[in-house]
Amino acid sequence: MRLLRADEIPDLALGTSVLGGGGGGDPYLGQLLAQAIIRETGPVQLWDVEEVPAEALVVASAYMGAPIVMAEKLPQHDRAVGAVRSLERHLGQPIAALISAEIGGFNGLTPLVTAAQLGLPLVDADYMGRAFPDINMTLADVYGIAATPMVMVDDRGNQVILETVDNLWTETLSRSVAVDMGGVAMIALYPALGERMRQAAVPGSISRAMQIGQALRQARAGSSNPVHAVCETAGGMELFRGKMVDVHRQLRTGYAQGEAILEGTGTYLGQRMALYFQNEYLLAAVDRRVVATVPDTIVVLDARTGSPVLAEASFYGLDVVVLGLPCADAWRTPAGLALVGPRAFGYDVDYYPLTAPRHLHKPNL
Amino acid sequence: MRLLRADEIPDLALGTSVLGGGGGGDPYLGQLLAQAIIRETGPVQLWDVEEVPAEALVVASAYMGAPIVMAEKLPQHDRAVGAVRSLERHLGQPIAALISAEIGGFNGLTPLVTAAQLGLPLVDADYMGRAFPDINMTLADVYGIAATPMVMVDDRGNQVILETVDNLWTETLSRSVAVDMGGVAMIALYPALGERMRQAAVPGSISRAMQIGQALRQARAGSSNPVHAVCETAGGMELFRGKMVDVHRQLRTGYAQGEAILEGTGTYLGQRMALYFQNEYLLAAVDRRVVATVPDTIVVLDARTGSPVLAEASFYGLDVVVLGLPCADAWRTPAGLALVGPRAFGYDVDYYPLTAPRHLHKPNL
Repeated sequence: MRLLRADEIPDLALGTSVLGGGGGGDPYLGQLLAQAIIRETGPVQLWDVEEVPAEALVVASAYMGAPIVMAEKLPQHDRAVGAVRSLERHLGQPIAALISAEIGGFNGLTPLVTAAQLGLPLVDADYMGRAFPDINMTLADVYGIAATPMVMVDDRGNQVILETVDNLWTETLSRSVAVDMGGVAMIALYPALGERMRQAAVPGSISRAMQIGQALRQARAGSSNPVHAVCETAGGMELFRGKMVDVHRQLRTGYAQGEAILEGTGTYLGQRMALYFQNEYLLAAVDRRVVATVPDTIVVLDARTGSPVLAEASFYGLDVVVLGLPCADAWRTPAGLALVGPRAFGYDVDYYPLTAPRHLHKPNL
Repeated sequence: MRLLRADEIPDLALGTSVLGGGGGGDPYLGQLLAQAIIRETGPVQLWDVEEVPAEALVVASAYMGAPIVMAEKLPQHDRAVGAVRSLERHLGQPIAALISAEIGGFNGLTPLVTAAQLGLPLVDADYMGRAFPDINMTLADVYGIAATPMVMVDDRGNQVILETVDNLWTETLSRSVAVDMGGVAMIALYPALGERMRQAAVPGSISRAMQIGQALRQARAGSSNPVHAVCETAGGMELFRGKMVDVHRQLRTGYAQGEAILEGTGTYLGQRMALYFQNEYLLAAVDRRVVATVPDTIVVLDARTGSPVLAEASFYGLDVVVLGLPCADAWRTPAGLALVGPRAFGYDVDYYPLTAPRHLHKPNL
């Protein structure tokens, strides 16, 4: 156990933005919210997964909806707290700790704020190791943990409790409700006992995000290269450097979907990268040769500042570096790839782990 | 209190079909279901509204969805029973009796089947006095009774509990969920104490439906005119006689919408009636002069047999009689008309009570 202080939140927010892989929503608003609240409540206990008692009830707290809507309308976080309390009442069992459903983006911070307001500890872990658009796309799902009972609330005070036969039904039903609720809902879900949570969760996610954020901040303040600092701390590999020359983007059924085209610079001169996204960057191909796919995380950084570039905020002329971060091992199982491999998102290519030599065995697009 | 026996159900089903005003779904499947179950469970207690204790909890049991989908796929009624049980658990208070949300159509029978399976009494009343497409279109809403907590279940076992800030939000959120659930959901809603229920409900609805059904059956068996029998028993007035010459119908966002054109016969020769429907017949105009509007009930009967003609089943060549049945008085209040008057359905005409002389004060279409 350690304490997470208000002054550490900017590093955490920066790190969750990197791990969001272009999606998950801009955590900056979450940062402001978390700082304001934790300055008031005092530091939040951060528990290692091993410290969570086997019989303790752990619940994920998150926002659900299109990041683009969330950025336009800061939700009332008290409602997210209310969702957790409602779930507790519905389950009839006290909640012992909160966890992130996804470490990437806004939701990397959400449960921290909820934990501060409830006076509960936060588990240093998450169920994705990155960000994904659908709420069933978690390692909790891979390990057979039900997303329901799940509570959804909106800003007005409407509340919906779901109990479904599987997590895909949870996604289907809750997505419609979130759209009706105005595009954003505050949710409490994936109630699990400590021992089940430990099986499924990616351990150390919060710490990892903080380390990445810290490395980036220190590189910017000193003289080292911010992009190198991120790449090294996150254990990533460079995939491309170039300039954004074309971005097609549309908001379809609540997702920012599209593709960005990059023209290579430096050693990549003369090459073109296509980056396909559905909230997150999901597929990167250089001259039609696939170089990285979901579930590995594709990170786009501003070449000069190292700032993560969200897919929803990418624009013409930006000089960027594209990194690949290997995903959690459990995502590389058949069950993991069936859920979040490239084919699950409609791309007709196989998954090849990022760690394989890039010039070998890569499928063409 | 009296007992409702299995052999009385065909009359009840026929009556609810008349009171459905062209909508509410064909109660024939409900009739078969109710007969099969009540033959097994024994008769159901039918309580007058005055017999319900002031502090007793009364809940509506219903099916929600497009009648056209319901007709194609008979739902598992055990799930509707499960919805009531879930609502009871959620409320933490025993349910004392069931009630119909709408007497018209399929849902005139639904709570009877649920009551039989749960061994609970059924209140001889409903919250519409007819059928309406939206679940907030009830006299319960007019009298400030919340539709939530409301439970929705589907055939697979998915369950959603709603708690909303008003009944319009209940309709919005539950409609999306019902569509996701495959077009039909089984619901338990409008929990209310006996004294609140008594304020809002139309008393005697079940008995009235049974009397109408009985009169129709007896007229058919004897030598009297079935249409006259219905009109007299239901306290209605004849609006038109004619032949269906044109029917435009489409299934839009879960509703059967459209219009039917009738060419007059007999004393109506040379006149044309237009019947507009959205699940139910909502507006009737003769030669563009409005002769009846929602919330009064517009009933279309087969001229020969007196069988009610559902809007979803109307077809070219049918010889029909159109009747108007005056609505419950509470519907004629400003609050009632704001909720279910012609303008609430998008028709740009005022409501004129059916009892006014038909040749006076009627707006043009």
